[in-house]
Amino acid sequence: MSTSKVIGVDVGGTKILAGVIDPEGKVLERVLIPSPTDSTEALLDGLDQAVTKLLSPEIEAIGFGIPSSIDQRSGMVLGTVNLPLQGLCFRQRMRDRFELPVGIDNDANVAAIAEWKAGVARGANDLVMITLGTGVGGGLILGGKPYRGSVGAGAELGHMVIRQDGVPCYGNCPGHGHLEALASGHAATLAAREQFGPEVDARELVKRGEAGDEAALALLHKIGESLGAAFGSLVNIFNPELIVVGGGFAAAGELILAPARERMALESLPNMAELTRVVVAELGPDAGMIGAGFVAYETLENAAATL
Amino acid sequence: MSTSKVIGVDVGGTKILAGVIDPEGKVLERVLIPSPTDSTEALLDGLDQAVTKLLSPEIEAIGFGIPSSIDQRSGMVLGTVNLPLQGLCFRQRMRDRFELPVGIDNDANVAAIAEWKAGVARGANDLVMITLGTGVGGGLILGGKPYRGSVGAGAELGHMVIRQDGVPCYGNCPGHGHLEALASGHAATLAAREQFGPEVDARELVKRGEAGDEAALALLHKIGESLGAAFGSLVNIFNPELIVVGGGFAAAGELILAPARERMALESLPNMAELTRVVVAELGPDAGMIGAGFVAYETLENAAATL
Repeated sequence: MSTSKVIGVDVGGTKILAGVIDPEGKVLERVLIPSPTDSTEALLDGLDQAVTKLLSPEIEAIGFGIPSSIDQRSGMVLGTVNLPLQGLCFRQRMRDRFELPVGIDNDANVAAIAEWKAGVARGANDLVMITLGTGVGGGLILGGKPYRGSVGAGAELGHMVIRQDGVPCYGNCPGHGHLEALASGHAATLAAREQFGPEVDARELVKRGEAGDEAALALLHKIGESLGAAFGSLVNIFNPELIVVGGGFAAAGELILAPARERMALESLPNMAELTRVVVAELGPDAGMIGAGFVAYETLENAAATL
Repeated sequence: MSTSKVIGVDVGGTKILAGVIDPEGKVLERVLIPSPTDSTEALLDGLDQAVTKLLSPEIEAIGFGIPSSIDQRSGMVLGTVNLPLQGLCFRQRMRDRFELPVGIDNDANVAAIAEWKAGVARGANDLVMITLGTGVGGGLILGGKPYRGSVGAGAELGHMVIRQDGVPCYGNCPGHGHLEALASGHAATLAAREQFGPEVDARELVKRGEAGDEAALALLHKIGESLGAAFGSLVNIFNPELIVVGGGFAAAGELILAPARERMALESLPNMAELTRVVVAELGPDAGMIGAGFVAYETLENAAATL
């Protein structure tokens, strides 16, 4: 039995969740602190504190899941919306600080890896993960391996064009009609506010839908249809075994997934939709931390392979 | 030096192009016959004739590129538009007939493999191929390997949703606003007819555009924009080194590719569009035959690996 241990860190916009993770993805110890987002220094200081609390001579590597696109060649954060990390050579910074192997990845990629290794997608070879949070993230496991793109900045499934010339996308994305602008928690909040007034956000919209409010159900149905159009594209592109849906707004459950499945069947080529199951993620808020732990193990394996 | 030889067969809707292919993708001998499309038997008879003309004791395997989605588990043709092959266990039929290892793949996948092994994309690790013909086909090389999906029916990039609730897609596809319905040769012909009358097809539209006809240029520009929206999605999904554009309608060249590149930049996340080059395929009408030859070699390698 392996006694290997690593630290996995979910670097969130509001909180940092770090844990000691074993090779099976079990969380042996954890630390939760609010994310200091005032400056790069403050945030790095917070991360250092969280990691230091968990450090021991047994820890072999550290992994970080970051809500940003990443250049895996340099270990640099390319683009980020909520955190002051853009342009930082994050991987090198952490290697220097802790003198351990460090792996970094996008937050949705680590969630996909977590669900694939230790969650609902265990054993699958080809799967697509969609995280519905404030934004929409994506992760890909293809041919039994995480797929990250030529420099590691891929799998941004929230930025598929679903409605050419549609509503502007969010943050620093210059696009229009992207999935993120149609089916994210933020999109749901905007639509809910327009319909019900400024006090209603995505969470309250789901509550009203669950209570049977017709207008809320119609809004959620519409969001589900855009999600399903994206699912149809993903079926035709990837012919995956699974589409795994995670993130806070996945709490809307069948209120969005039922219309999404229906639309997915309509947009898929004949005989293809039935090859893909749409399932809800299993690991919840721990997915990022656990997946970051698996990225740490991947870093160890890659280091061993190149020795 | 290897003296290995295979036969590659491009099974087209109008013609069958078969050739003897060496390991570098060189065409040593070729046969071209019209596709008999009246019945499954007639078509298989035509394929048998084409292959038989090229057979010799030196031939080690046969590969077929078929304009259909394929279930690689059974070697069955799942869905096909122009050829009477649906539901046929094509791979087994050819193995039985020729007593040789047989590989089959989708026509756009083989084109992608050809361009990757012997064409414009040589040496690339992550690339996306789009073939603009009557329909729009797709092929994926990811992490230095062809990606085909869980059963082999993936990479149908012509069936990405670009305009949710848009125009109906073609053939037996139940979707709406798919790339194929917006940027294929057939879509161009329909748009040209509507604008100029029944005698103008995609080819004539391109001619008029090249001659500077403003209305033709505007139509081609619009088609290019939809193509570019798809390119933007592909950049965000795959972070590929290359997007390779092939197929007959790629003859429109910069008349569609210039607006496509512009739109691609608009739909890509910050700093990502410049990581992907859009290039025109190099192998022309031979791509399918050459790629089918590489699929034959892949079949030999896989057989050797499992011995």
